[in-house]
Amino acid sequence: MTSTTSAYQIADLFAERARNLTPPTYGTELTKIITVSFAYGFADPILFPHADLSAASAAVLAEEAPIALNYGPPSAQLYEQIILRLQAQGIPADRDRLIVGYGSGQILGLLPDVFLEPGDVVIVEGPTFLGVVNRFVQAGARLITIPVDEMGMDVDALEETLSDLKKRGTRPRFIYTIPTFHNPTGTTMPLSRRQKLVALAAEYGVLVVEDDAYSDLRFQGEVIPSLASLDKEGWVLYVNTFSKIIAPGIRLGWACGDPAIIERLAMFKSEGPVGPFVSHVVARYCTTGKLDYHIQELIACYKHKCNLLLEAIAQEFPSDVVALRPGGGFFVWCKLPPDISAKALLIAANEQGISFLPGTRCYVNGQGDDAIRLAFSFQPTKKIVEGIATLGAVLHGWQR
Amino acid sequence: MTSTTSAYQIADLFAERARNLTPPTYGTELTKIITVSFAYGFADPILFPHADLSAASAAVLAEEAPIALNYGPPSAQLYEQIILRLQAQGIPADRDRLIVGYGSGQILGLLPDVFLEPGDVVIVEGPTFLGVVNRFVQAGARLITIPVDEMGMDVDALEETLSDLKKRGTRPRFIYTIPTFHNPTGTTMPLSRRQKLVALAAEYGVLVVEDDAYSDLRFQGEVIPSLASLDKEGWVLYVNTFSKIIAPGIRLGWACGDPAIIERLAMFKSEGPVGPFVSHVVARYCTTGKLDYHIQELIACYKHKCNLLLEAIAQEFPSDVVALRPGGGFFVWCKLPPDISAKALLIAANEQGISFLPGTRCYVNGQGDDAIRLAFSFQPTKKIVEGIATLGAVLHGWQR
Repeated sequence: MTSTTSAYQIADLFAERARNLTPPTYGTELTKIITVSFAYGFADPILFPHADLSAASAAVLAEEAPIALNYGPPSAQLYEQIILRLQAQGIPADRDRLIVGYGSGQILGLLPDVFLEPGDVVIVEGPTFLGVVNRFVQAGARLITIPVDEMGMDVDALEETLSDLKKRGTRPRFIYTIPTFHNPTGTTMPLSRRQKLVALAAEYGVLVVEDDAYSDLRFQGEVIPSLASLDKEGWVLYVNTFSKIIAPGIRLGWACGDPAIIERLAMFKSEGPVGPFVSHVVARYCTTGKLDYHIQELIACYKHKCNLLLEAIAQEFPSDVVALRPGGGFFVWCKLPPDISAKALLIAANEQGISFLPGTRCYVNGQGDDAIRLAFSFQPTKKIVEGIATLGAVLHGWQR
Repeated sequence: MTSTTSAYQIADLFAERARNLTPPTYGTELTKIITVSFAYGFADPILFPHADLSAASAAVLAEEAPIALNYGPPSAQLYEQIILRLQAQGIPADRDRLIVGYGSGQILGLLPDVFLEPGDVVIVEGPTFLGVVNRFVQAGARLITIPVDEMGMDVDALEETLSDLKKRGTRPRFIYTIPTFHNPTGTTMPLSRRQKLVALAAEYGVLVVEDDAYSDLRFQGEVIPSLASLDKEGWVLYVNTFSKIIAPGIRLGWACGDPAIIERLAMFKSEGPVGPFVSHVVARYCTTGKLDYHIQELIACYKHKCNLLLEAIAQEFPSDVVALRPGGGFFVWCKLPPDISAKALLIAANEQGISFLPGTRCYVNGQGDDAIRLAFSFQPTKKIVEGIATLGAVLHGWQR
């Protein structure tokens, strides 16, 4: 035994999967100061129910500290509150069909553990939310992209793909979809497509993962039933979150579906259930009954911001930039004219202090340079107007 | 396309690893009502700093809600506070060497992702904390157990094992140890063993995972430097938690070590960093400076309970039951006389409303039926005295 420097390296101890790190890259690094960012779907901090959460925290710590601060399961009331919300939407929900995680992202990130071997097929939308889809890529999934049009995923194209795959003996593991106020396009799938999607899932034996993060933030139109409420045979795993309707920083999301899936997600959520403290605080807030009123406030604010953004676009952008009006959610998707590249536009916009998400960051297959995603959720109204005016000037000045 | 029942099953979609579920078993199921449980190392709820945490929550929600409730990284102050604590113990700590997780259990549970292929050797103590070690088993690790005596892990036996393994061309991935106020034995490794352990780690190129959850709760004796503070070559990954010194229900623990390890742990902590809200609340509490005073209160209370338990044992147990006096922590380990089985004793004790952890639940290799672990942390003092009297009567009445 010696005390000299070891002949060994820590790095030799790493398992193969941990050896070659490829940290995620987020496109062009910013070197300019951004004054108005439309890039991220952050919640508007003005809308956080901080006083009510403070009252909830105080009540929990005064009355329930012995259980909320010790080891143990999350608040039973939290499960109850989520189950009530799900049942109100017509989704069959009970304790065995529900898992709560640190954000819906955690649960979606566990899907590969339960379903994927390298090379397995996963069907995603194009464009889609890469924050989730990149997890499937990391796990070695073979992704097939189904286009999204003004009515969400093209379910006829999906049927064709499923049929082709079946002929080749391939059964996809799951279909990841955001049918309501889609990220990034803001589109909503009509009932007929939903019915067909659910029927296709059963026909081809493929799970549908329904990410419903935005559905409570509806600005217009009727409620369209979720896929989970239409599904009578258990082929839909429904995923939602408190991030958009309470606050992302509390980190609580959930999934509801077949108990065999839920049980396995729980097994791979290796740190155990979510923390007692935070679950009690949120449960306490929900049981006040204030959440539904709060959601109405959120809708009013986000609807106003969305309208403001669309009006500013109509006024400031060249007429051949086509903005899709979303029925709710956080995003407006703009199709660019053929001679403008989203990536090139981003570089020019950054020079003027403006940021957004180029469409290329919403596809796994290299598409998307013909569109941009503008998030209206985070910026104050004044900044929205300013930012769109500046971006409009960049677009008008474009060499065409 | 049909709407009839699908010809497929959800279960066909599961990956191999998720197919055959083996939910963890926790030994004999309780059918009796337990009035005094010494089984689990739960914190004493009377000691939770609920008023101070309430003040911290209120301050965070009044002053920092826009960042504490939105998407984003955990509180920078939380990292600072942990780094200060680590540096005060002589552990080289900085932002790149630190990861915070939802409890130290989450971080320890990520070790297999970074280090283990099935069949890889991991060295553990016998007895040890199976809550962590079972994760290594699940990952397919081949465990080698090094005995623990009154001075913690037998480091000479470790050296022999490392030497034997090296001759056979096997390099273990890591050694999992609880050197201070060991769970379950309460023993503390003296400086000489620590120095030798750290030197062995470097000599054989094996990581040492030091679980230091109990070290702040010292009832007697001098501070003995942690392995991480003795290690000058980066072979120790230090793990600790707020569970024992603030509250388990907040679910915050950390690891400090080689940045290459930390980076990989973060990569496999797939839901991202811990939540902004809870991290801000705990950071706010820590920056009040009250934590160190709070720890002094905890020490006074747990020391009192420990002494009470030991006095009750001296009075109530047969003299051939040998209790180890811990220098701190939550547990007293009792060696039973050869004719008493811990598992049989547990059944008899349950009949009388008493529970504890049989030693068999602290070994992966079937040993431990000759000892029991008594946790004095959770029960009120009156219950400790009552419970030991009842257990003493069971022991005295044992057919020998």
